[in-house]
Amino acid sequence: MTTAKYDVLGIGNAILDILARTDDGFLTAQGMAKGSMSLIDEARAKAIYDAMGPATECSGGSAANTIVGVASFGGRAAYVGKVKNDQIGDFYAHDIRAANVTFTTPIATDGPATACSYILVTPDGERTMNTYLGAAQNLSPADIDETQIADAAVTYLEGYLWDPKDAKEAFVKASKIAHGAKRQVALTLSDAFCIGRYRSEFLDLIRGGTVDIVFANEAELLSLYESNDFDAALKQLRSDAKLAAVTRSEKGCIVVDKATVTEVAASPIKELVDTTGAGDLFAAGFLYGLAINAGHKRAGELGCLAAAEVIQHIGARPQGSLNALAKQKGLLG
Amino acid sequence: MTTAKYDVLGIGNAILDILARTDDGFLTAQGMAKGSMSLIDEARAKAIYDAMGPATECSGGSAANTIVGVASFGGRAAYVGKVKNDQIGDFYAHDIRAANVTFTTPIATDGPATACSYILVTPDGERTMNTYLGAAQNLSPADIDETQIADAAVTYLEGYLWDPKDAKEAFVKASKIAHGAKRQVALTLSDAFCIGRYRSEFLDLIRGGTVDIVFANEAELLSLYESNDFDAALKQLRSDAKLAAVTRSEKGCIVVDKATVTEVAASPIKELVDTTGAGDLFAAGFLYGLAINAGHKRAGELGCLAAAEVIQHIGARPQGSLNALAKQKGLLG
Repeated sequence: MTTAKYDVLGIGNAILDILARTDDGFLTAQGMAKGSMSLIDEARAKAIYDAMGPATECSGGSAANTIVGVASFGGRAAYVGKVKNDQIGDFYAHDIRAANVTFTTPIATDGPATACSYILVTPDGERTMNTYLGAAQNLSPADIDETQIADAAVTYLEGYLWDPKDAKEAFVKASKIAHGAKRQVALTLSDAFCIGRYRSEFLDLIRGGTVDIVFANEAELLSLYESNDFDAALKQLRSDAKLAAVTRSEKGCIVVDKATVTEVAASPIKELVDTTGAGDLFAAGFLYGLAINAGHKRAGELGCLAAAEVIQHIGARPQGSLNALAKQKGLLG
Repeated sequence: MTTAKYDVLGIGNAILDILARTDDGFLTAQGMAKGSMSLIDEARAKAIYDAMGPATECSGGSAANTIVGVASFGGRAAYVGKVKNDQIGDFYAHDIRAANVTFTTPIATDGPATACSYILVTPDGERTMNTYLGAAQNLSPADIDETQIADAAVTYLEGYLWDPKDAKEAFVKASKIAHGAKRQVALTLSDAFCIGRYRSEFLDLIRGGTVDIVFANEAELLSLYESNDFDAALKQLRSDAKLAAVTRSEKGCIVVDKATVTEVAASPIKELVDTTGAGDLFAAGFLYGLAINAGHKRAGELGCLAAAEVIQHIGARPQGSLNALAKQKGLLG
């Protein structure tokens, strides 16, 4: 096995976030389940957009947010995702490249528009996402560059990829290439509702060794094992997964492997503004910590620090250098 | 004169802001004059965008920001500006309508793309703008709806409109309609560099009574009279204008007419993040104060409050209700 060119390569749905503040009444009136991610078609996208307030646009997409976070820590990062050559796609490609991420996925010249997620942020900071997948649905196995995957120490995949059929195949192809090159594969379970759609497939991926590292939050862990008992579900996850990090909002995170359980406290915040990207940025810090062999505790701390940064402002990507922030907090030398 | 349907109608260049944080070295390397607004062509826009960091997109445009601010205070507001039917134009039209602003200007179906301003925000919170006018250049006298202008108590115009030739004619047409209907016309001088391009024309507008209310900041006032002496320039402005409000950043503002001089202290802030929109939002509060006959002092206070809100976050439009904020501060009953 040669030295990896990238610390982490992420594959995901490339989505521009359209964020607006709202109140709980709007979610109720629109029949939205608070905190969830719903897939919507173009007509529903238009209806939601017409009803929602003035917005701000930022590049998003779960795995992309993670990869930008890895780069912000100073990691070598690459991203695979599908946009179209429209104005939104231009924003997207600019933002990820400007974040020092290698992004070479061919850009679609026809078909649906670049994906958008209409994100409603309530006063409690919780985000409710409505995603029109558009061009992201057309990510296909042909977009997976074998050399690039083999060059990444970790290939990071989002559970959301299980929604578009071709993307799922791209996911599986990438996993095989990564393992063929003796690299690792990480998976985020993405969303409790997403797990509801694909529970048995996700369990097969974890139990069958298609993925080596699993990221989940509490709700996702409970959904995965259809349990109400956190400790029992965590025990099952330890039995099924090689390594997992479970995030618990203000309670920090727990990192588990077959031999160890490591609890890490949350990073303090001044004000919770918008939880969009919290899990994504946790994964960024954790994966960067693994890349520099910092150990589970420090990796968890870096994850919590990055999550704390991103929830204190609107949008799912860090607003400053996470490397500088981590140095300031004494987490990086 | 019938009762006005709108408190304020604004006419301006409709522009999507593309905001990125940077440092002073970037401005120097790009040959940008800090704090200025430069007009750029498509090629220069591409070069700047390629060089700048990850960005956030928000609807902007000087007069539009003001009008959205008026609506946020609870004023009845309308906007006239030109976008194209592209993705950026869709964002723009959505955002202004979602802010409760009447926006009925015909949307271009061909010609250049919707305008974008590439805005670099330095660590001191100062913004440096590079504007590709695109579709905004094609605002023409035909876009001025006589009934709508006659229905507005104040028609508010941005000095930037003097850049595109047809927009200038639209400006003059609107002023004539407004005065024909016994309404008032307000002008913001926009930018010291803009004044450098059109000084004698702006002075003619003020001295000839084409505009009734003038907004300027210190630099613009000094540029208008090619002076280094604030007091002398202010004296000249009092002699030339019927009513003027001059903003002085952390020193607040001075409101002058032929008979009175009213000084208003700045509104306190916790942290200066991004000055984009400061002058625009001052004008919003001031015009809303005039609309409710609050007097010069209170109008100035409302202006300072709105400016303070907008400089504490990224983007040029208020993030919450200015009416609620003003009530909380005891400035509105």
